[in-house]
Amino acid sequence: MKKIAIQGEVGSFHDIAAHEYFSGEQIELACCSTFEEIFNAIRRDPTTIGMLAIENTIAGSLLHNYELLRQSDVTIIGEHKLHIEHSICCLPEDDWESIKEVHSHPVALQQCRNFLSAHAELKAVEAEDTAGSAEYIASHHLSGWAAICSAYAADIYGMKVLEQDIHDNKHNYTRFLVVANPLEAPELFPANKATKASLVFSLPHEEGSLSKILTILSFYGINLTKIQSLPIIGHEWEYLFYVDVTFDSFTRYRQSIDAITPLARNIKILGEYSEC
Amino acid sequence: MKKIAIQGEVGSFHDIAAHEYFSGEQIELACCSTFEEIFNAIRRDPTTIGMLAIENTIAGSLLHNYELLRQSDVTIIGEHKLHIEHSICCLPEDDWESIKEVHSHPVALQQCRNFLSAHAELKAVEAEDTAGSAEYIASHHLSGWAAICSAYAADIYGMKVLEQDIHDNKHNYTRFLVVANPLEAPELFPANKATKASLVFSLPHEEGSLSKILTILSFYGINLTKIQSLPIIGHEWEYLFYVDVTFDSFTRYRQSIDAITPLARNIKILGEYSEC
Repeated sequence: MKKIAIQGEVGSFHDIAAHEYFSGEQIELACCSTFEEIFNAIRRDPTTIGMLAIENTIAGSLLHNYELLRQSDVTIIGEHKLHIEHSICCLPEDDWESIKEVHSHPVALQQCRNFLSAHAELKAVEAEDTAGSAEYIASHHLSGWAAICSAYAADIYGMKVLEQDIHDNKHNYTRFLVVANPLEAPELFPANKATKASLVFSLPHEEGSLSKILTILSFYGINLTKIQSLPIIGHEWEYLFYVDVTFDSFTRYRQSIDAITPLARNIKILGEYSEC
Repeated sequence: MKKIAIQGEVGSFHDIAAHEYFSGEQIELACCSTFEEIFNAIRRDPTTIGMLAIENTIAGSLLHNYELLRQSDVTIIGEHKLHIEHSICCLPEDDWESIKEVHSHPVALQQCRNFLSAHAELKAVEAEDTAGSAEYIASHHLSGWAAICSAYAADIYGMKVLEQDIHDNKHNYTRFLVVANPLEAPELFPANKATKASLVFSLPHEEGSLSKILTILSFYGINLTKIQSLPIIGHEWEYLFYVDVTFDSFTRYRQSIDAITPLARNIKILGEYSEC
């Protein structure tokens, strides 16, 4: 049985993503309250696999998770995209008339802004987690409180769904990364089967330094699927680049990395995996 | 007197940024509760200037504001970088012992996560605005409530600062854009004095399509200071690129735009302005 460290409670979107990614396999969840804890869990038990959100079509990239990944020694072994659908739920005996406040993760509250504006009588309260809010209300039997979470979490905790699909933007997808200890990774996913890789490197603030790297990648037939620059704090004229690439030939991809390495600073391969 | 539309209340970080950017000038603030309203205010009164946050060193880019900018007909005429410093404040007669909940904008709450963890007895409540929370507590005389906002806002609303600099990361900077109606822009900032520009364009998901654009820019001596790719929802194989460039020669910059235009789709210059 695989042990999967996720951020959030049973019923959270990380839980749903983990069960979809490992569908057909027996998994045991290790629920972590922060993303840092996922990395600590893998450090303590190298057979633990981590699952963490990395970007959302509406909220953008989770820069902090990129930073954790860059500084860690874990490697990406897979990715999963999940359609995010929010519901509002309460205790079975409560209803629209009796609920007074709604608890959820700040990002979920933000993604239901139109719904919350239309229900100005509900006080929005920030909580650690979407599913965790439902769990807390159910276990403490908090009458008058509602939670925003998935319908799946509402069901798990015996809550009543008042309304489904209350998020503003229906194209709400989150991309999750599956990460593991690099010594365990080859057994979980053989790198030479990879069709995608995530890289990070830094470049001096110099005309054409990025165009050289991208031109070489294109000469090797490597596709760019994501690029994001970040200023390096304390190094005014240096930038970090997070890049995702896809490719048909793993050999050509590896050759392209050899070709760009002398031109980039501190290049790090965050993982080689299968595009989903 | 210039009329500046900002997001948030008097005392908000947008207010501070506007007063710093227009220091020495008389300005009148038009406080908007959403970023959309800033654009509406400029549409209603073309002489109104807008000021909106576009990225933060910790939270990343405000993708929604990029999208508003792309779809609007306003142009960027300037930028300003502000060091974000959060304080916790309450009514003068309240103190650590008597406060029970702390209200602020979700991003501000997130940026003070360590502080809030260390004060688990305080319930974090999401509000529209940082300064707005201070204003609300002061005007309703809400004993037991605290707000997270700037020390400047606390002072404006006669609140007592309990602790300053409660944000986790001291390198917390927000970059603001100054935007205006394009017909008014030349008088506010003559484009030929520009040293920086923001562009958006789309590219097919094709090997080397981005590297061609960046190579041409580098041939013209144009520096890249930011690049961010975004998938276009509903167009699986097409990407949007938001790019900031800096340059010494405005003529060379304009020539480089002419040179890349045939290779990019729907290129739009979001503004030409002075690097800050």
